[in-house]
Amino acid sequence: MRIIIFSLKVFAFAGVVGLCALLPINYMGSQIVIDFSDFTNKSLESFSISNVNDGSKKLWIHFGAVYAFTAFVCYLLYLEYRYISLKRLAYYYSSEPKADQFTVLVRGVPKSSTDSLSESVEKFFSEYYPSLYLSHYMVYHTTKIQKLISDADKVNRRLAFLRSTQKTSQRFGRVGFLGLFGPKVDLVEYYEKKLEDLEDNVRTQQSLLSGEEVPAAFVSFKSRLGAAVALHVQQGENPTEWLTEQAPEPDDVYWPCFSASFISRWIGNVIVVFACVILTILFLIPVIIVQGLTNLDQLETWFPFLEGVLNIAFISQVITGYLPSLILKMFLYMVPPVMIMLSSIQGYVAHSQIEKSACNKMLWFTIWNIFFANALSGSVLYRVNIFLEPKEIPNILAVAVPGQATFFITYVVTSGWTSTASELLRSMALVSNFMRRIFFTKADEKFEAPSFPYSSEIPSILLFGLLGITYFFLSPLILPFLLVYYCLAYIIYSHQLLNVYSPKFETGGTFWPIVHNSTIFSLILMHMISVGIFGLKKLPLASSLTVPLPIITLLFNSYCRKRFLPVFKGYPAECMIKKDRSDEAMSDFHEKLVTAYQDPFLKPIHFSGRTDGSNAPLLAYET
Amino acid sequence: MRIIIFSLKVFAFAGVVGLCALLPINYMGSQIVIDFSDFTNKSLESFSISNVNDGSKKLWIHFGAVYAFTAFVCYLLYLEYRYISLKRLAYYYSSEPKADQFTVLVRGVPKSSTDSLSESVEKFFSEYYPSLYLSHYMVYHTTKIQKLISDADKVNRRLAFLRSTQKTSQRFGRVGFLGLFGPKVDLVEYYEKKLEDLEDNVRTQQSLLSGEEVPAAFVSFKSRLGAAVALHVQQGENPTEWLTEQAPEPDDVYWPCFSASFISRWIGNVIVVFACVILTILFLIPVIIVQGLTNLDQLETWFPFLEGVLNIAFISQVITGYLPSLILKMFLYMVPPVMIMLSSIQGYVAHSQIEKSACNKMLWFTIWNIFFANALSGSVLYRVNIFLEPKEIPNILAVAVPGQATFFITYVVTSGWTSTASELLRSMALVSNFMRRIFFTKADEKFEAPSFPYSSEIPSILLFGLLGITYFFLSPLILPFLLVYYCLAYIIYSHQLLNVYSPKFETGGTFWPIVHNSTIFSLILMHMISVGIFGLKKLPLASSLTVPLPIITLLFNSYCRKRFLPVFKGYPAECMIKKDRSDEAMSDFHEKLVTAYQDPFLKPIHFSGRTDGSNAPLLAYET
Repeated sequence: MRIIIFSLKVFAFAGVVGLCALLPINYMGSQIVIDFSDFTNKSLESFSISNVNDGSKKLWIHFGAVYAFTAFVCYLLYLEYRYISLKRLAYYYSSEPKADQFTVLVRGVPKSSTDSLSESVEKFFSEYYPSLYLSHYMVYHTTKIQKLISDADKVNRRLAFLRSTQKTSQRFGRVGFLGLFGPKVDLVEYYEKKLEDLEDNVRTQQSLLSGEEVPAAFVSFKSRLGAAVALHVQQGENPTEWLTEQAPEPDDVYWPCFSASFISRWIGNVIVVFACVILTILFLIPVIIVQGLTNLDQLETWFPFLEGVLNIAFISQVITGYLPSLILKMFLYMVPPVMIMLSSIQGYVAHSQIEKSACNKMLWFTIWNIFFANALSGSVLYRVNIFLEPKEIPNILAVAVPGQATFFITYVVTSGWTSTASELLRSMALVSNFMRRIFFTKADEKFEAPSFPYSSEIPSILLFGLLGITYFFLSPLILPFLLVYYCLAYIIYSHQLLNVYSPKFETGGTFWPIVHNSTIFSLILMHMISVGIFGLKKLPLASSLTVPLPIITLLFNSYCRKRFLPVFKGYPAECMIKKDRSDEAMSDFHEKLVTAYQDPFLKPIHFSGRTDGSNAPLLAYET
Repeated sequence: MRIIIFSLKVFAFAGVVGLCALLPINYMGSQIVIDFSDFTNKSLESFSISNVNDGSKKLWIHFGAVYAFTAFVCYLLYLEYRYISLKRLAYYYSSEPKADQFTVLVRGVPKSSTDSLSESVEKFFSEYYPSLYLSHYMVYHTTKIQKLISDADKVNRRLAFLRSTQKTSQRFGRVGFLGLFGPKVDLVEYYEKKLEDLEDNVRTQQSLLSGEEVPAAFVSFKSRLGAAVALHVQQGENPTEWLTEQAPEPDDVYWPCFSASFISRWIGNVIVVFACVILTILFLIPVIIVQGLTNLDQLETWFPFLEGVLNIAFISQVITGYLPSLILKMFLYMVPPVMIMLSSIQGYVAHSQIEKSACNKMLWFTIWNIFFANALSGSVLYRVNIFLEPKEIPNILAVAVPGQATFFITYVVTSGWTSTASELLRSMALVSNFMRRIFFTKADEKFEAPSFPYSSEIPSILLFGLLGITYFFLSPLILPFLLVYYCLAYIIYSHQLLNVYSPKFETGGTFWPIVHNSTIFSLILMHMISVGIFGLKKLPLASSLTVPLPIITLLFNSYCRKRFLPVFKGYPAECMIKKDRSDEAMSDFHEKLVTAYQDPFLKPIHFSGRTDGSNAPLLAYET
């Protein structure tokens, strides 16, 4: 939760330092009088590096600033990484015993000719870990039951609505196609009958499950260390069987995705990676089409019948002015759900993992489609091949990036400032809620506090960080705008996190490595641009002296990975054993643990008010 | 041990298939009559792909061969990887209980203000693993003692030689500088006195050690699973403290390298990587200088005084003909020891690890300096920047590589065939032994059976594999020569391994991943060349259809890594628990285990025949 606030602080602070270091030295010294009444592009440009003469000694100030800024950001990153990893340990020490700490998810349970999968799991773990093994819960194919239960749920809510309503006209209706055909019947009776049928059906299906086991199980141990042993030590002789991974929190499990075997998950992974790359690159096509809207003439030649409409001044203004950015925004809103869908295909078994993976995907998508597509002035598709000639990258970036400073300053204002403001209003959620209430049955709505959309918010915050880091020495005037953005974002997100969103899962600080990596990437990009800029400005010495900087930064990054990342992947034995010892009266907890993991679709259902005993589950859960 | 033989078989077999697939189809069909009496470069060239017309349909046969060959090699690789990983498990099951299976090496023991390092280790493990922890052995700084003991060893051997010799003239001599000055004394008495002094000194030093602990310890556990838990689960809260790694076999430990701390080892690693890269690239300089020897005119302008000598026909023939390759060979012989030295600086703690890391370094060194330097015709230094333009690589390789077919066929004959032959004679060892006996004291020699020089032999074998894979479709005539080489090598290495070398450590199949990776690299290189060739031969469709092949190969590789590599990194819990249970009467073994790891320089020394009890070690080893 606190990650966002921390990243805000880091960037804001870094921005202040960059501003202090650069603005007075470079620009006060060079006698540029700032005329705020004529705050046009020209005066903006006068602040940028393009204004400095070729080979000027003043460029050495920029050079020094690049080094100082990098050192400072790395220092901050180190402090933050350490702080968050310590917080993570403290959080672990202070937490109550939780089911996920004692449980591992075992996948790739091998088929045996004599035993069922559940029996093999039981045998394997009770043979090899007799003193540590507690229980296991098999995962089942529940697609059919999911369908039935969601139907029953709908019927039930419809029923509740009908019962609560007073109007008789609504109690009677036709039940044929779309409620238009067939004789009029008492809807309450009709739905009650239907619900009962569905419930019976669900129970029959639940009892038939034993053959439909998925080769995956949640295996619980008596101590945290036991779970860690099963987690970290390769279990089976075949490394593709008895694969263990950290179990997510019980509420966090994403049940539909358990069916995939090792090889199909591996193939799925490969396909998803390809799909992401293709989506990221092909997203430029709608961007280009939308940009075509600004040329009305072309639109007229395409659709001649529009000519009359387009000649009206107001409409043409709307189309050229607002429509492109609106359509683009709509497209952008569609991307996070797509990324989440892709991540869920990949075989992640927890909402938190899916969210994290989608966050990563969105980050690269945003950097590519906002930063690179705009910095390389839209023609990025034709310039994709610059990445096949690494030697040329600094030069191309150095030519393209500084020219877009004005655009990005505008972007910070229009997109950054307004997005935080609209975040406060949550206008999207309001609109979509409103639409749903109009077009769908009013009674079907259940209100839930939304969880924080990490996968769409973190990437956009990091994008502004990237802008700040790359432009701080090219055109420092972007920094005050960014600072305003970060202050706004700090206030607004603090409010939203405290009062609006309810967390679905504990992140436990696991989003921080993404922030760290993205910042390191921004630094390296900045170094590449500065190598190119110093070359262009005929200061080859400064250019070659900048080359070691990205290497040092990468070394710093690899050190951080060794020093801090392990704590984010798992907890050390020291902590686990200490926690295990400090727990008392564990037998209560063990009882709870046995039933902690349960597919929500296999729980007995209680829609109709019948009390004839058939509510009891027919399937006895193996415990 | 069997890895080499396996790799030979794989490549020989792959070669046969490549030959069968290509030779009849391509060349019998195209009516080239092979005139073996005129077996010159011209007829060699007629076999190569350069002979096929641009855009010819026959190129599709090559295209098919590339796909078929890749599929076949991947299939073989898969079978071999599976076979060796099963062998590895079988070897583990059949092995006697060994000290290294029960022991982990703990590094980065944190300093404590109250306890000594040894006490902290004892406390930490007996607190957290009370039922599993058995004992530990601290590592000490022993540089001084090493020096003293090696001195004592020399004196002792000298003494033994003097005692055994009959000549009185050798019994008396001067003991001053180089045995030239000072009065004549009885050398036996003199050396006996000296030896006693040294021994006392060693004992004093050994007793003073307690302050000189290195923050590293061998920690032994009562079961294999205990050691695995300590190995795989992060121990301390700080991931740079209590670092655990698999302990090497007791005889395999490389004692001098324990002093480095986490951060200094990390820096050392970075430096060594840089040093390797620089060495590999700069090695071209002696190559170029040596190649300068073939131009005698230039030599005469550099060293005018040599003019008279160089005009003698015999000498100029020797210099231009033999000297360059001889000097190059000498330089090449110097490289493996340098690589081993670099690897030992890196902080590896076992001879086997050092050998493996040196093998990897040598592999890239060989591929770069033999394959690329020659394929790109010596001017590789100026062409280094092709690696900065990845798009151009296939084209450049396609132009350069086929032209060097004749050179590499000659190389297989001159270097490959002769190196295996000289391996049989072990002429280098003979010469160096002879030289040492002449220039150094004769008595100082101890004979030890040499261990197999993996780090110099495996890379050269793999280089021939690379040649075979890249040239099989460019110029298939290289294949019979390679086959002869591999048959020779199979016979000779089998003989050498069985009768000449004595293994210093069990490799346990851990060299196989190197062979696998190198083969995958060769395949990808071959694909890149074929993409280029098909482009040059104006068959763009074939060229683009080859592009998916390297991607598929990389995917295959990543699958193999997931499927097999874990078994090479550690043993699965299933095996360890089974082994633990099958062991009986472990108390004897536990006693042995306690003293298994001991720095050879801290063992009590027994050079002089004294029996006054001062042979007992003054330092009581913590157990």
